[in-house]
Amino acid sequence: MLQITRQTEYAIRGLQDLTRRRADAPVQLKVIAASCEVSEAFLAKIFQMLAQAGIVKSHRGVKGGFSLGRAPEEISLREVVEVCEGGIVLNHCLRKVNPCDRRDTCDVAPVWQKAQDALTGALDGTSLADIA
Amino acid sequence: MLQITRQTEYAIRGLQDLTRRRADAPVQLKVIAASCEVSEAFLAKIFQMLAQAGIVKSHRGVKGGFSLGRAPEEISLREVVEVCEGGIVLNHCLRKVNPCDRRDTCDVAPVWQKAQDALTGALDGTSLADIA
Repeated sequence: MLQITRQTEYAIRGLQDLTRRRADAPVQLKVIAASCEVSEAFLAKIFQMLAQAGIVKSHRGVKGGFSLGRAPEEISLREVVEVCEGGIVLNHCLRKVNPCDRRDTCDVAPVWQKAQDALTGALDGTSLADIA
Repeated sequence: MLQITRQTEYAIRGLQDLTRRRADAPVQLKVIAASCEVSEAFLAKIFQMLAQAGIVKSHRGVKGGFSLGRAPEEISLREVVEVCEGGIVLNHCLRKVNPCDRRDTCDVAPVWQKAQDALTGALDGTSLADIA
């Protein structure tokens, strides 16, 4: 099944919740997890990954938690999906590194490129602000 | 990684080879497999699946082998991908049966729908005749 992982689904759900709160202070993960009906442990792993990518910012301490790393208008769903999935590469011929060695003579590679561009374009055009 | 399986990749490679031959008689699987640099055993499983979907036709006997099930213009890459992947359903909210119960109030579901439509549209517009 050509399908995003649950990890990506929960990342978007969590980011949507965080964006909707428009909080002045960091939001505790357990609050987001409860609101999203996602286990806090699983969401913690996901938000750690999002923090490494700069999509969210982690704040330590008693009043610690998470805030968005940038304005919600500047975070596209494409970026979130790419971080959580480890990339959107519909077929290995589209890899930037070590692409298929048939690529230059292949009549199918341009079709994959077109399909991938259509997919990423749709996700690129939607920001966290759009879904919040 | 949001990526098609090797099974789908080889299905398209095999179908492309079969289409290019424009043979009057069935083509033996070992001939297609050799030409595509794919193991015959793996391709046999794939072609069995394609035969069940009517994309290819299996011919028994000494001169047996495979032919296309329909004209190459009438077989889209979308159909091949859907058969080999068991569907293109980017997120579970887009399932026809048992979709996510948040779907009706979710602001993300329409984005997945748009992204999926873009992807399937690109694959729908390409037939085996186009890549042969």
